[in-house]
Amino acid sequence: MLIVLDPAITPEQRAQLLDRVQAAGCQAQATPSAYGELLIVEGDLDVLKRQPLRLVPGVRKVVALSSTYTLSSLEHQQEPTVVKVGRVRIGGGGLTLIGGPCAVESADQLLETARAVKAAGADLLRGGAYKPRTSPYSFRGLGIDGLRLLRDASLETGLPTVSEVMDPRHVEACVTNVDMVQVGTRNMNNFDLLIELGQSGHPVLLKRGRSATITDWLMAAEYVLAQGNPNVVLCERGVRGFDPSTRNLLDLAAVAVLRTRTHLPVIVDPSHGTGHAQLVPPMARAAVAAGADGVIVEVHRRPEEALSDAEQALRPEAFRDLCEDMRLLASVRKSDIPSSDA
Amino acid sequence: MLIVLDPAITPEQRAQLLDRVQAAGCQAQATPSAYGELLIVEGDLDVLKRQPLRLVPGVRKVVALSSTYTLSSLEHQQEPTVVKVGRVRIGGGGLTLIGGPCAVESADQLLETARAVKAAGADLLRGGAYKPRTSPYSFRGLGIDGLRLLRDASLETGLPTVSEVMDPRHVEACVTNVDMVQVGTRNMNNFDLLIELGQSGHPVLLKRGRSATITDWLMAAEYVLAQGNPNVVLCERGVRGFDPSTRNLLDLAAVAVLRTRTHLPVIVDPSHGTGHAQLVPPMARAAVAAGADGVIVEVHRRPEEALSDAEQALRPEAFRDLCEDMRLLASVRKSDIPSSDA
Amino acid sequence: MLIVLDPAITPEQRAQLLDRVQAAGCQAQATPSAYGELLIVEGDLDVLKRQPLRLVPGVRKVVALSSTYTLSSLEHQQEPTVVKVGRVRIGGGGLTLIGGPCAVESADQLLETARAVKAAGADLLRGGAYKPRTSPYSFRGLGIDGLRLLRDASLETGLPTVSEVMDPRHVEACVTNVDMVQVGTRNMNNFDLLIELGQSGHPVLLKRGRSATITDWLMAAEYVLAQGNPNVVLCERGVRGFDPSTRNLLDLAAVAVLRTRTHLPVIVDPSHGTGHAQLVPPMARAAVAAGADGVIVEVHRRPEEALSDAEQALRPEAFRDLCEDMRLLASVRKSDIPSSDA
Amino acid sequence: MLIVLDPAITPEQRAQLLDRVQAAGCQAQATPSAYGELLIVEGDLDVLKRQPLRLVPGVRKVVALSSTYTLSSLEHQQEPTVVKVGRVRIGGGGLTLIGGPCAVESADQLLETARAVKAAGADLLRGGAYKPRTSPYSFRGLGIDGLRLLRDASLETGLPTVSEVMDPRHVEACVTNVDMVQVGTRNMNNFDLLIELGQSGHPVLLKRGRSATITDWLMAAEYVLAQGNPNVVLCERGVRGFDPSTRNLLDLAAVAVLRTRTHLPVIVDPSHGTGHAQLVPPMARAAVAAGADGVIVEVHRRPEEALSDAEQALRPEAFRDLCEDMRLLASVRKSDIPSSDA
Repeated sequence: MLIVLDPAITPEQRAQLLDRVQAAGCQAQATPSAYGELLIVEGDLDVLKRQPLRLVPGVRKVVALSSTYTLSSLEHQQEPTVVKVGRVRIGGGGLTLIGGPCAVESADQLLETARAVKAAGADLLRGGAYKPRTSPYSFRGLGIDGLRLLRDASLETGLPTVSEVMDPRHVEACVTNVDMVQVGTRNMNNFDLLIELGQSGHPVLLKRGRSATITDWLMAAEYVLAQGNPNVVLCERGVRGFDPSTRNLLDLAAVAVLRTRTHLPVIVDPSHGTGHAQLVPPMARAAVAAGADGVIVEVHRRPEEALSDAEQALRPEAFRDLCEDMRLLASVRKSDIPSSDA
Repeated sequence: MLIVLDPAITPEQRAQLLDRVQAAGCQAQATPSAYGELLIVEGDLDVLKRQPLRLVPGVRKVVALSSTYTLSSLEHQQEPTVVKVGRVRIGGGGLTLIGGPCAVESADQLLETARAVKAAGADLLRGGAYKPRTSPYSFRGLGIDGLRLLRDASLETGLPTVSEVMDPRHVEACVTNVDMVQVGTRNMNNFDLLIELGQSGHPVLLKRGRSATITDWLMAAEYVLAQGNPNVVLCERGVRGFDPSTRNLLDLAAVAVLRTRTHLPVIVDPSHGTGHAQLVPPMARAAVAAGADGVIVEVHRRPEEALSDAEQALRPEAFRDLCEDMRLLASVRKSDIPSSDA
Repeated sequence: MLIVLDPAITPEQRAQLLDRVQAAGCQAQATPSAYGELLIVEGDLDVLKRQPLRLVPGVRKVVALSSTYTLSSLEHQQEPTVVKVGRVRIGGGGLTLIGGPCAVESADQLLETARAVKAAGADLLRGGAYKPRTSPYSFRGLGIDGLRLLRDASLETGLPTVSEVMDPRHVEACVTNVDMVQVGTRNMNNFDLLIELGQSGHPVLLKRGRSATITDWLMAAEYVLAQGNPNVVLCERGVRGFDPSTRNLLDLAAVAVLRTRTHLPVIVDPSHGTGHAQLVPPMARAAVAAGADGVIVEVHRRPEEALSDAEQALRPEAFRDLCEDMRLLASVRKSDIPSSDA
Repeated sequence: MLIVLDPAITPEQRAQLLDRVQAAGCQAQATPSAYGELLIVEGDLDVLKRQPLRLVPGVRKVVALSSTYTLSSLEHQQEPTVVKVGRVRIGGGGLTLIGGPCAVESADQLLETARAVKAAGADLLRGGAYKPRTSPYSFRGLGIDGLRLLRDASLETGLPTVSEVMDPRHVEACVTNVDMVQVGTRNMNNFDLLIELGQSGHPVLLKRGRSATITDWLMAAEYVLAQGNPNVVLCERGVRGFDPSTRNLLDLAAVAVLRTRTHLPVIVDPSHGTGHAQLVPPMARAAVAAGADGVIVEVHRRPEEALSDAEQALRPEAFRDLCEDMRLLASVRKSDIPSSDA
């Protein structure tokens, strides 16, 4: 940390500042310069960083010289994290494909779709039991019954499952019935929920908040990691944009940025990222080419009857074709693209 | 609702569509036009609106002709809602001023600040017991102890209190100890929390989500109202902007837009809305001139020692001057500005 | 066009409105409904659309039933436009690769880079002679001398060239010396410039404005097309985002959206779209997988000496590897991905 | 400037870097630290700042210690700039009110509106002769004839005039006929136009670009100032937002931020800032309370007949009432609000 002093600092203010640095367990090395005196502060900066030093009388500027140390950073861990969900592995160079309906609507609908996504080559089954809906008057999911249908579909097809949780009081039921728990975009900063999931040790699929920077997102992951749960998969699903052409603005560069900052796996959700079925295949393929560890897609046997997100669901046949494309692109990626630049 | 049919619709598709409309309890009136046949659909549209009609074969376009009916709308209630918090009234033409620290840090700090904001002319005391923090390593509030300190400060000063809740499991403790419960920007779409607060009947201060449209925000209020709790106050606190000059982009026009759409009171938070103490007074004054029902400001006895949001806190003297300005502007507003255009 | 009348409309107001419709050369068909009387207006709506009908007394709502007819739309032309730049074709299924320095700095620098990008497999050479710079104190390009160096480099290497123009007074010099003229993001709405380029008939590379919706962008293209110049190539280069991790927020879904709306070719600029050299290869590959007709990349022989945009320039060797990747991905795309869903 | 060296820097790299600093006419003072060796670089940094130092081998980080010196900054000039437009002064504590139609449509329309805005108490008359329109098929203004009508209306009423220019080739005609030349939001970065206006010496009303940060905006002003023309007035008119409730997102905090950074006057345009006539009065009042030096409002004698921006134009009577409100608020502001905190 570098503190630039105000030329008008009084000797008392200067002494108080040095005391403060020392009280925080750090050392300051003073150097005169044309910008005013500089204090180069070293040691364990944790305590000092939490203080509003810029407001202390006599301080003109505070400059960070080291990045905040976090469990999600490449400084902490260089090898990629691989998260195991049942027998499926996410991260570390492979491509994990996830498909299924937005919402679990009935045993019949879920099972038919589960079989179809399995036949298409998906690795995991998604399905919402607790549905966040903008309007309180929309269908809000089957709740615990939906979780049980997911468990049954998993037993039947052998596909591990992922489903969203919104309320810390539902964590236990989710953890018992599904293999991976999703935190949706609206709850990325639901810190009590994140802590609860951190304590569960269960795999967590953490979607990016709609107005979250990549740093905000990694700090949300940190809430889970800090509880001792390393099983976090990040999911880019678009941020709020100004163009109504798409439901969200899918930020595929985030995949590449994350590779330079974190060891956690990153998957992409082109369904919420675009909001329109016809835009899902090109964006899913682009996600694979950008280096994503996986793709999660909404699939419905008959989109025109879906109770939520009907416009962005693929039919099973379209999903099957897309899975083929993605596997092919991933094989090209694997053999021909040097990993160093991604 | 208007449905524009595809010229290539088959008789079977047309018949199925009409059955669907009828099954939903509505009537369709068919009219030929140069755009293709038009169906003007009337009746109770609730069921039909939840269906993905645009995906039904033979349908080219679906146009809404009436706005979604909601409890927060002016169609539902024309006279302004007045929310009572203890003996204080928010809404209906007055100006309610709220001040206090970002976080409750100690009995001493809270009480000293509470006395100062009361002396400055504030109507309510704010203070955070559960603090949402981007980093899990930041100070996260005193929890239940903080709530008790708020109750004590309220007894001592006579000021009603407002404090944030993030976890549905904390609602009971909050409702017991503080007079108004705040839902923060990160939890605007924490639907389980909103329902819990709706059932409590307690006054709710609902902050706008950082990437929420005004419609999204009113639908969040609807979650509380739909549980039978009419005591909702909206709080504009800025949305995510692209200019790092300010912490958020304060959308004062939202105050004027809300006047055209809802009967609920609206207050403004210039502290989070700007993030810098020196920008708080001009934006607080602008909020009053824009017609806000109140203003909520962070005040700390010594900002340079604050454990959170230090850079945006006003000192008690600055808050006192600001309260005078705001009262004066409100009096001008009241006597000289016709209410019709605001 | 559908006009919903206010139930309180007076007979005089209704008569005046019908006169207005007729005076604009259209016909109105009146239909009673539960929403108030509906007027279905048919005929050539051009005149009527320019009028503020919503403000006419007695009108409650105006709903468009047909999209604005434009020369860029798929309604106007279904087969893809192919723009010829020298002997190079952009659009229609191939992949056009463009490389070169941000700014032309010297004969030597340009020629060395031109040879390198040609060797790497690029089809066109880019280079800025007139540089838009945020600060008036930055290097602003060599102007007409830069254009002449581009012409020389083109003669030497055989690569057609593209360079930016900002001032209508420079159009003639640009058109004389380079094969394609670029309109930068800051000038997307410089309408006088667009008209001048439209009249030139020269190929135009039209970058997306930093806060332009796709509709805004297509309307800018329309300014060129409406002058009788069909040679417009669109270039996605990112919009303003809120996360400082990247210089812009590259909107790759725009490529897929444009496929559903226009016959014009679309290329992608991952250099400005990300602002960091290490993010360029993954985003370039993603652009190809998303279906772009081409990619434009900044290449500098020694980025650490570049006079502008140094941080986003690739070295020639990295560009060569990337060209190989992109050609490979395009071949996969061509043979295996059904064109229908993109 | 502070350069943090990579611990792995070689002696040759270090020597080359020091040579580079010296060649740029600066001095470097080396200091060891726990972050690696630090070079504190002093002297005239202009040359060095233009170099991509971060890319030089052996450099880990470059930190600016002084802000970029600009003619618009408070470091350069502390007393507020007052721009004289005819006999009217903008800046320095007063409130300048500007009204008039979006577009000059006819002699009759302009003169009637000019008389009305004068009677309402406006100081300047606005009116567009060259209209930037998203669609090439919209009304694009009367051009030079419009400028002449403005000159006539000014002679008749005594009001100085302001009108937009978009093309450097029209600057001379504008400067001859109107008293202040406006640069619109789409042309904030039309650098050739800014330079031409800088050389004219004429008063310039510089609107904020739709996606411009405050720093971008001040750098655009710098283009005019650097040509020796100090007569620049900034105009906040809203940035691109994500909520369709308003046409733009009016950033009133920008007024307060600019007070902390520049001596140039700042006015606000609530007409484009909101896009709806009913939102204009509250936002105009808020602008005055926020400390703006003036407000510019679109006024049309019959908005329902306006050829552009009809929905945001005030009728003359509404403008008159608003002028009264604004003058009253400004008088309160003047007498009762300490200037120090704005």
